[in-house]
Amino acid sequence: MQAQDAHGEPVGAAPSVRFEAHPEGYRHWRLEFPTEHGGMVARLVLDVRENEGLRPGYPLKLNSYDLGVDIELADALLRLRFEHPKVRAIVFASGKDRIFCSGANIYMLGSSAHAFKVNFCKFTNETRLALEEMSAESGIFSLAALAGTASGGGYELAIACDEIVLQDDGSSAVSFPETPLLGVLPGTGGLTRLVDKRKVRRDLADVFSTVAEGVRGKRALEWGLVDESPSKKDFDAAVRRRLEAMVARSKRRPGAAVVLEPLGESRYVSLAIDSEGESAGVLPARRPIDSEGESAGVLPARRPIDSEGESAGVLPARRPIDAKAHRANLTIRAPEGPEPQTPDELARAGSNAWAIRAWRELDRALLELRFNHPGVGVVAVRATGDPERVLAVDRMLAQHCEDGLVREATLLAKRVLKRLDNSAKSFFALIEPGSCFAGSLLEIALASDRAYMLDHPDEKNEIWLSPLNAGPLPMSNGLTRLQSRFLRDPELARRALEHSGPLDAQAALAAGLVTFAPDDIDWDDEVRIAFEERASLSPDALTGMEASLRYGGPETMETKIFARLTAWQNWIFQRPNAVGPRGALSLYGKPERPELDFNRT
Amino acid sequence: MQAQDAHGEPVGAAPSVRFEAHPEGYRHWRLEFPTEHGGMVARLVLDVRENEGLRPGYPLKLNSYDLGVDIELADALLRLRFEHPKVRAIVFASGKDRIFCSGANIYMLGSSAHAFKVNFCKFTNETRLALEEMSAESGIFSLAALAGTASGGGYELAIACDEIVLQDDGSSAVSFPETPLLGVLPGTGGLTRLVDKRKVRRDLADVFSTVAEGVRGKRALEWGLVDESPSKKDFDAAVRRRLEAMVARSKRRPGAAVVLEPLGESRYVSLAIDSEGESAGVLPARRPIDSEGESAGVLPARRPIDSEGESAGVLPARRPIDAKAHRANLTIRAPEGPEPQTPDELARAGSNAWAIRAWRELDRALLELRFNHPGVGVVAVRATGDPERVLAVDRMLAQHCEDGLVREATLLAKRVLKRLDNSAKSFFALIEPGSCFAGSLLEIALASDRAYMLDHPDEKNEIWLSPLNAGPLPMSNGLTRLQSRFLRDPELARRALEHSGPLDAQAALAAGLVTFAPDDIDWDDEVRIAFEERASLSPDALTGMEASLRYGGPETMETKIFARLTAWQNWIFQRPNAVGPRGALSLYGKPERPELDFNRT
Repeated sequence: MQAQDAHGEPVGAAPSVRFEAHPEGYRHWRLEFPTEHGGMVARLVLDVRENEGLRPGYPLKLNSYDLGVDIELADALLRLRFEHPKVRAIVFASGKDRIFCSGANIYMLGSSAHAFKVNFCKFTNETRLALEEMSAESGIFSLAALAGTASGGGYELAIACDEIVLQDDGSSAVSFPETPLLGVLPGTGGLTRLVDKRKVRRDLADVFSTVAEGVRGKRALEWGLVDESPSKKDFDAAVRRRLEAMVARSKRRPGAAVVLEPLGESRYVSLAIDSEGESAGVLPARRPIDSEGESAGVLPARRPIDSEGESAGVLPARRPIDAKAHRANLTIRAPEGPEPQTPDELARAGSNAWAIRAWRELDRALLELRFNHPGVGVVAVRATGDPERVLAVDRMLAQHCEDGLVREATLLAKRVLKRLDNSAKSFFALIEPGSCFAGSLLEIALASDRAYMLDHPDEKNEIWLSPLNAGPLPMSNGLTRLQSRFLRDPELARRALEHSGPLDAQAALAAGLVTFAPDDIDWDDEVRIAFEERASLSPDALTGMEASLRYGGPETMETKIFARLTAWQNWIFQRPNAVGPRGALSLYGKPERPELDFNRT
Repeated sequence: MQAQDAHGEPVGAAPSVRFEAHPEGYRHWRLEFPTEHGGMVARLVLDVRENEGLRPGYPLKLNSYDLGVDIELADALLRLRFEHPKVRAIVFASGKDRIFCSGANIYMLGSSAHAFKVNFCKFTNETRLALEEMSAESGIFSLAALAGTASGGGYELAIACDEIVLQDDGSSAVSFPETPLLGVLPGTGGLTRLVDKRKVRRDLADVFSTVAEGVRGKRALEWGLVDESPSKKDFDAAVRRRLEAMVARSKRRPGAAVVLEPLGESRYVSLAIDSEGESAGVLPARRPIDSEGESAGVLPARRPIDSEGESAGVLPARRPIDAKAHRANLTIRAPEGPEPQTPDELARAGSNAWAIRAWRELDRALLELRFNHPGVGVVAVRATGDPERVLAVDRMLAQHCEDGLVREATLLAKRVLKRLDNSAKSFFALIEPGSCFAGSLLEIALASDRAYMLDHPDEKNEIWLSPLNAGPLPMSNGLTRLQSRFLRDPELARRALEHSGPLDAQAALAAGLVTFAPDDIDWDDEVRIAFEERASLSPDALTGMEASLRYGGPETMETKIFARLTAWQNWIFQRPNAVGPRGALSLYGKPERPELDFNRT
């Protein structure tokens, strides 16, 4: 089925994208371990098979990539962490002559729906950031060995590496031709990394980003675009020397190798979609409300919220819509039995250990939500099971944080939680009796836009904190979710962490850890109305609103990429100058010239 | 003439917006100095005249505003700085019953072109940030006295104040109804200030931003949305008490009063538009370039830049377009004679002193560029005159920086330069013999996307630094333009400042202060081609690219507003869910219900 979105655009990917991969099945990458570095260097060779794109219609020429290529890369990076604890450096190379990588395939982009383009860029961004996290947190450095041209997303992959070596051969270049040729921006963090990571002078970055043919050799080095530009004859030696230096300076912690088995059917995470068919369509929204006949301005007509009488802030909508529309239910389950208590036991349990498997399953569910369920706007998040089992896992991870494998399991959870933070869906956590928002799972509630906790007179309903709430799982802005939550009063974060034992609904509400705590009489209505209200709002406004409210406080290169750069790219990706019938992206490779509207916005 | 842009949208404002105002001519504000505070408090009363909008078609009901209302506000704030040195606090109040301000007028927005909406929001943002700068830098605090509802942009004005008092009367509320009612975001920094300035907890901010009717009284106080919520009876006393405290703690430096005379004809700044008529249309762009028949990927076909042979990075375009199209020439002139050498002399010279007048003229020119010349994409910036006169002004400003008037003159220059940083045009500085890029005027070259400096064998061509390059004129990111430029090597900033005397083209190039230094043989061609190339690129991609490259390094609340929030708002402002024929913004106030496409992006 070739799906179409509500504007009649083709949905960019086949209806269902699968996010699992295995090196034996890679079509576009080769993962090698050259003997000369004693197994401590992994070589990732990009050798894209033109005719094996994720969907038909765009041959992947010149080592250009689509989502399928990047899913393999993400898989390879994850396996290097878990399956290859000896590896201390990665070198990226090309299997093609004269071309390293020419970036995201233009025909794939040009024929994809807006939402797919945005989600594709988000995923590639997360993969590049994971590569940088390997360097910062795991002691696995990366080197881009450019024996050919790296353009667009090709240079963005290189600039996500710690070091770049560009062969000085009179033809190999680095370039960002997106602006001059396509009327869009480099979509995978390139502009931000130019000035923030490599700190290229802004006027030189301006020149570089507008010259389609890019910059070669010595000038690329002078401008800080690459770290070394040896001749063809000296290229291999330069790469080898840098890799040896990386291996020597790596502080990668020893840890056992754990093979990541295929996930197969979910054990710990379930994702259920309500009324998907209906939700992808166009429904009438609530009518804007006039105030006594006056329709100018935005004066509210409904009764404002105050603190008297109402237990929650959301009054009944006047025109409820089907609560199930646009909604998904995401449930994470605690371990069912005893889990490893030492790194050795964790190694023996392997990828079936809850601390690894549950987060891999959640990651898969989040990606499925993004790519395969565009009609879902709001996600009800639940956690179930025995909180003591989760807290035991958290204690083990905290106690053995120096162990390499434990560290990778914790970093996996951190990245998955960041994936949640960066997902353009509303998340409402529902904390009910039998729930298990404990420690690392409580982070999911803290990452949610709201948390509703049932204050039941008879049934126990509690949440718990653990050492994993205190630092090991920071957001992209570098703060813990508690710190982000309590920017106004950091003392509240400290106090929550000092509390030992469970917090019931009233205690959690008082501590500021949940949004609302309705009692059992109000619960059903209040939650239902909250979901109905959310499902009735403009999904575009919600995406922008959530991107603004989720990241109070400091910005980092990572949040700049997702906010500043991605938001601009989203804008440009729907402008007629790019995607209109005469836009530069639409007409790329065709004989017609694009026609641009030169008015500046 | 009712102008239309290239997509047939009406241009949002009358073809020419005037940015000068005078209290005697205010239509929507009253500027009062209540005697009870001894002239140390200014009272700004918003009392919008419904039928005096900037253009016809949208009655400004319920104290809603358009650009004309905000131009008056910006004027009032500027005059409080220069004309009223005694003032230490501003209180904002409403001249209407039960309503403080209902924000930007929805019909004005709904009937405006996309570019006008974006520029309107940018201007209102700059005015709010100027209000915050008065508090941070000038010791002039501000208080929002809400004896009625502040919704949307009304609450955004309040949240830009230091303190907010909301009357607890059962009806007055604060609210952001943009998302629930209009399918857009609060466009004037509201979401960012919620979580970054007032540090409202993110889940409460989420609830607040989705409830059209807003939040009243005690709950508004509990959530941190306001600072006090007295009863109607206690309201005036609470406002008075807070104003007295502000007056008491203000450290406003004494300075002479200077009346800001109408600018009239420009003396120091000229703006000339080339071929405006042509430039607003749709011209064919350069054709994307295939690489030997291969059209996938983004491989460059033209020769990359290297360091051999070419003095500049921009090779000839294959299909030059008219160099004049989309181009403006902006020239700033140095003082023509001696300027004040002390604060007293400055006070006597008044608003005709170059240190005040030149920046007011530049400000006016930048606003005219934004609003009245949408077809201009690239601006050639020149400075002319005697550099010694500019350096003398800079020395006086630096030496007497403790004086209140001197401080305001310097802050004015700072804000105008930030306006330039935030303008969605490309700026190329042209430094030729006879030029005067000295000290504060050099900042204009440093703010430009590129600087071309003619390396002439016979004619002297130099630039100069002054103490004003070392700190008093920071960018929105809190860094000086030198610091932003030399993120990679901060030593270069220090070295540039230590250099005394002029730098010729080769010295400036070596110091990293200019982008290119072509000789007299190459100059004409190189500059012409640079402008032609720039004028041929997608203006949307350039806007996003420049917004990314101009702000390397740290982010502040201010840069977050312009990047994170504004970019998202730009995106949402062109989505069908907002502005399509059935979009929420388009149908606001009409009997039809909006229809939303609920797919999430």
